[in-house]
Amino acid sequence: MKFASLKADTPDGRLVLVSRDLTKAFDIAHLAATLQYAIENWQALERELQHCYQQLNDGQLADAFAFDVNQAAAPMPRTWQWLDGSLFLSHGELMQKAFNMAPIDGAEKIPLVYQGAGDDFYGPTDDLLLPSEAHGIDFEGEFAVIVDEVPMGTTAEQALDHVRLITIVNDVSLRALAPREMATGFGFLQAKPSTAFGPVAITPDELGQHWRDGRVHLPLHISWNGQWFGNPNGSDMHFGFHDLIAHTALTRRLSAGTVLGSGTVSNHNRSVGSACISERRALDVIEFGEIRTPFMKFGDRVRIAAAMPDGSTPFGVIEQQVVSA
Amino acid sequence: MKFASLKADTPDGRLVLVSRDLTKAFDIAHLAATLQYAIENWQALERELQHCYQQLNDGQLADAFAFDVNQAAAPMPRTWQWLDGSLFLSHGELMQKAFNMAPIDGAEKIPLVYQGAGDDFYGPTDDLLLPSEAHGIDFEGEFAVIVDEVPMGTTAEQALDHVRLITIVNDVSLRALAPREMATGFGFLQAKPSTAFGPVAITPDELGQHWRDGRVHLPLHISWNGQWFGNPNGSDMHFGFHDLIAHTALTRRLSAGTVLGSGTVSNHNRSVGSACISERRALDVIEFGEIRTPFMKFGDRVRIAAAMPDGSTPFGVIEQQVVSA
Repeated sequence: MKFASLKADTPDGRLVLVSRDLTKAFDIAHLAATLQYAIENWQALERELQHCYQQLNDGQLADAFAFDVNQAAAPMPRTWQWLDGSLFLSHGELMQKAFNMAPIDGAEKIPLVYQGAGDDFYGPTDDLLLPSEAHGIDFEGEFAVIVDEVPMGTTAEQALDHVRLITIVNDVSLRALAPREMATGFGFLQAKPSTAFGPVAITPDELGQHWRDGRVHLPLHISWNGQWFGNPNGSDMHFGFHDLIAHTALTRRLSAGTVLGSGTVSNHNRSVGSACISERRALDVIEFGEIRTPFMKFGDRVRIAAAMPDGSTPFGVIEQQVVSA
Repeated sequence: MKFASLKADTPDGRLVLVSRDLTKAFDIAHLAATLQYAIENWQALERELQHCYQQLNDGQLADAFAFDVNQAAAPMPRTWQWLDGSLFLSHGELMQKAFNMAPIDGAEKIPLVYQGAGDDFYGPTDDLLLPSEAHGIDFEGEFAVIVDEVPMGTTAEQALDHVRLITIVNDVSLRALAPREMATGFGFLQAKPSTAFGPVAITPDELGQHWRDGRVHLPLHISWNGQWFGNPNGSDMHFGFHDLIAHTALTRRLSAGTVLGSGTVSNHNRSVGSACISERRALDVIEFGEIRTPFMKFGDRVRIAAAMPDGSTPFGVIEQQVVSA
């Protein structure tokens, strides 16, 4: 199944089912007014939702309407908890090599993750409103999962049973602000403005064999101002999402609707390019001895989409412009 | 005005007004079902709420009932954003001196703050469910404010106008897990389990002259297993809450209902004791050359309450036991 939240008068949007090919939408307010509600009541709703989805794909719903990505908010327009990992180790290794940073102790054994702000997510085509180009505006292409309630102490073996939906992310980052925040040990805050999400969140079965081992085994295609920037594959994720879930649930429960991100998709094979500018800058340093790639300017655009082998985009496309706030 | 959220079938509880002396409560569901709603619609509701509160204090509401702190959830049982500062510099200075930690660069000029998990707060008398004594279980007595929507770029001069309510906090911390998380630069996650709050959140006018300069000028009384542990005063806060709000709103808006904490209350005058065990352990090291104070054990209790000069507790009392999850 595929879900979107259309922009509406309420901050949580108007929940719709979206057809597999992303062309049609169907209002399911009679079943669940919000995606949060659907996640909380998944067991009770799943059968009816499946039935609706089947009919939508079969063209049997007279009230279906065209799905307009420009009307889409984030699938969860806000959430009670947003946790973002850094689970592709090649990203960190590259940054450390280029900028002479000390390796983060134990990063290959314990998932890196920061607590993000979930109160105010951007939709897939929303302008990214930011106060200053001097902050080092960067995109980060990621995968993310949405879980139902995860009890404290859930193990990695149990964790995948809690994954209800999968989506893609633009984890907007302000690189000039990050080093100071990392140095305090308190983590990112000003460096992580509101995050953007793909048009739809989808059930794992939509990916078939491409969802396995708690990883999305698909390339994430990134372009910047219409130019190819990278297509790294999710298969290189060092930890699976189950590891991230178990790590974050060690000392607390994760409430239903918690969103967990993979961190920037990054591959050891450098020919696939990058999912964030920061990584390209690290490669500049390694290759040329200097940074040659600037960060984003106001007016710049980024496009992020995962692709199936047939070229289809299961989560739809993130396409955003950076705009002066 | 004083607000509490009583435990109910819904995660956001049942909003009540509580009398100034904390003895009576009055259901205000006809005005606002949740504190989140009240904060979002403050301008429209304030006059009617004030009227109700006056009548409640005057004993004119026949439907008022006894306020039972054991029925209280956190005033905001969950929130879309929880930001916790470390604004009492004497706390950090002490830790650094005792444990030979490097000072955090610029901590006297830029507020330290981490993004916390707001999805699942504890009420004032809830058991603190935790998985292991080996994690170094600590309490932290703090003040906190609840704001209405704060636009991106709000200045410190404008910020206090957004403070709607003030309360107290037990920012439960797992000290054995914190150093590793700080060293990664990604900030606290496992080290910060669910946070607990006082029985009521109150409007600034309830504190009279004790709320000024964005600080609560009152002592916070802490006891551990019935023994005095400290009564440091909020007046020593190096930054005001307005500084914290402006800092966190630099690159994003704060949605209505965002809760911001002061960090452990700590005074340069050491005779007033401490608001967390970690600080006492630092004093042990400085005085005796060794740590003599253990962290909390299962079954231990902590009590946290701010006191007015007449001995009354404007926010009520946090009184919790640590229990094995």
